[in-house]
Amino acid sequence: MKLTILGCYAATPRTFTNPTSQVLEIKNHLFLIDCGEGTQVQLRKNKIKFSKIQHIFISHLHGDHCFGLVGLISTFRLLNRETDLHVYGPKGIKEIITLQLKLSNSWTNYSLYFHELESKSPEVLYEDSKVSVETIPLNHRIYTNGFLFKEKPGDRKLIIGRAESLNIDVSLYNSLKKGKDVISEEGELIKNEEVTTDPAAPKSYAYCSDTVFYPEIIPQIKGSTVLYHESTFLEDKHELAAPTKHSTAKQAATIAKEAQVSKLLLGHYSTRYPDLDKFREEASEIFPNCELSDDGKIFLFE
Amino acid sequence: MKLTILGCYAATPRTFTNPTSQVLEIKNHLFLIDCGEGTQVQLRKNKIKFSKIQHIFISHLHGDHCFGLVGLISTFRLLNRETDLHVYGPKGIKEIITLQLKLSNSWTNYSLYFHELESKSPEVLYEDSKVSVETIPLNHRIYTNGFLFKEKPGDRKLIIGRAESLNIDVSLYNSLKKGKDVISEEGELIKNEEVTTDPAAPKSYAYCSDTVFYPEIIPQIKGSTVLYHESTFLEDKHELAAPTKHSTAKQAATIAKEAQVSKLLLGHYSTRYPDLDKFREEASEIFPNCELSDDGKIFLFE
Repeated sequence: MKLTILGCYAATPRTFTNPTSQVLEIKNHLFLIDCGEGTQVQLRKNKIKFSKIQHIFISHLHGDHCFGLVGLISTFRLLNRETDLHVYGPKGIKEIITLQLKLSNSWTNYSLYFHELESKSPEVLYEDSKVSVETIPLNHRIYTNGFLFKEKPGDRKLIIGRAESLNIDVSLYNSLKKGKDVISEEGELIKNEEVTTDPAAPKSYAYCSDTVFYPEIIPQIKGSTVLYHESTFLEDKHELAAPTKHSTAKQAATIAKEAQVSKLLLGHYSTRYPDLDKFREEASEIFPNCELSDDGKIFLFE
Repeated sequence: MKLTILGCYAATPRTFTNPTSQVLEIKNHLFLIDCGEGTQVQLRKNKIKFSKIQHIFISHLHGDHCFGLVGLISTFRLLNRETDLHVYGPKGIKEIITLQLKLSNSWTNYSLYFHELESKSPEVLYEDSKVSVETIPLNHRIYTNGFLFKEKPGDRKLIIGRAESLNIDVSLYNSLKKGKDVISEEGELIKNEEVTTDPAAPKSYAYCSDTVFYPEIIPQIKGSTVLYHESTFLEDKHELAAPTKHSTAKQAATIAKEAQVSKLLLGHYSTRYPDLDKFREEASEIFPNCELSDDGKIFLFE
């Protein structure tokens, strides 16, 4: 699981900071999460192959999370993209994009599917044999979802040497990987646990931005490998967090601790703070395993 | 008259090139012309004061000329702008912007006026005592206007020493600047030309992008101080220019020559060309006083 931060600052793009966008590489997918203005240039700078992005998840319709989407969709067209593209986001996103494509007379030559969201309960947006993506309903000034990306448990690991010594036919190896017991060539019952070990624990990534401090999400994200939680403010501006429906670094850490995640990533910093390390310091007091996102930073979760 | 090129490349924003946008400073106005994605960051890089921009002119609704507009309008709001903003552009631009503001529940706290254009004949969009702005109808794949910015003739220049020696009361100086004859303290008629000289010749800037080779514009832009004319292609891709309704550098130079402008600026280059100097070489053969636009370049026209 590899996460590339394309932008992690609140509000407006600036000379050296970008609004929210990130790419999650998981089980051979490249999922784009949010798409602030300038995302396509950030994708280029980070050498991410445009055609590998087939699913884009938009948390909400504030500009710093979606104003780059129409440009990216148009650029895909100019690059003669043929791959389907799926966009998941709040109701209205289809109208925003199609209106602009219509008025510029620039329809896409690839298939563009919109999946508009309205539910205030978690819903599964995407699922295949290896991964699933579901919404995490958040609490912000407008309708907003976080997203929970979950690997599915992999196959059990076969101890090949033992399977051979027990004289199990290779045609049965797949059954063993699926957890089944088998019969050896000698007609003996071989219990699965004799020749396999547990698969690697499935990883998960919970993306929560933007939101006020909202403990209602804790049961859903419990035990996640990584939680990205917005921290627009430090506690010194605590009084701004509630009315703007944003969180402080301390609040993000509190959610991480209660949800017993393995690691916390902070982001969506207000540009009023010149020293990001203060975010890490504040959060670390409550949840030590926390790191700072920054534009262009790559996190590998093995 | 000062022109700052924020972006002058065709199609998509890239790591080191920006789509179309430029700022014309003329008679104490800052006019923003077109607004591709990333324009607000380019404005910051070029240290242009956001609040001084009160008029934005959008040539057409292809993304590389307008996808940065909604972000700029939103950023103005976040910066607590109070000054009115006027946006001039093709019919539909109001719907694009207001839909996005509505869905993000982010109405502007300043007054935002849309002036939607549909006419295929030139119209005056803005006029005050010192400057006027009119559309230059162009011929592109969708409805497109260029813009002609014209200084008005200034006051006549008073030769103060002569006015004093002729004993003209200072209360009459303004009449002299306006070209009137006056009566001296001794009761003598003083002809205007005795105490004034001609004002500086008014300057003008014709912005023409995007368009196919379109000689119909020549009468309107005749004698302009500066013509910015798109040159998406060189003649080597001449066969692409007509169907995409773009121009070559040679065609841009032909328009400049026929219109007897003083200077030609080239821009809107296809990113397929690594060597911009070829554009200047091609155009110079027909119209020698031509220069290349480039992102961040500033032109002063004295």
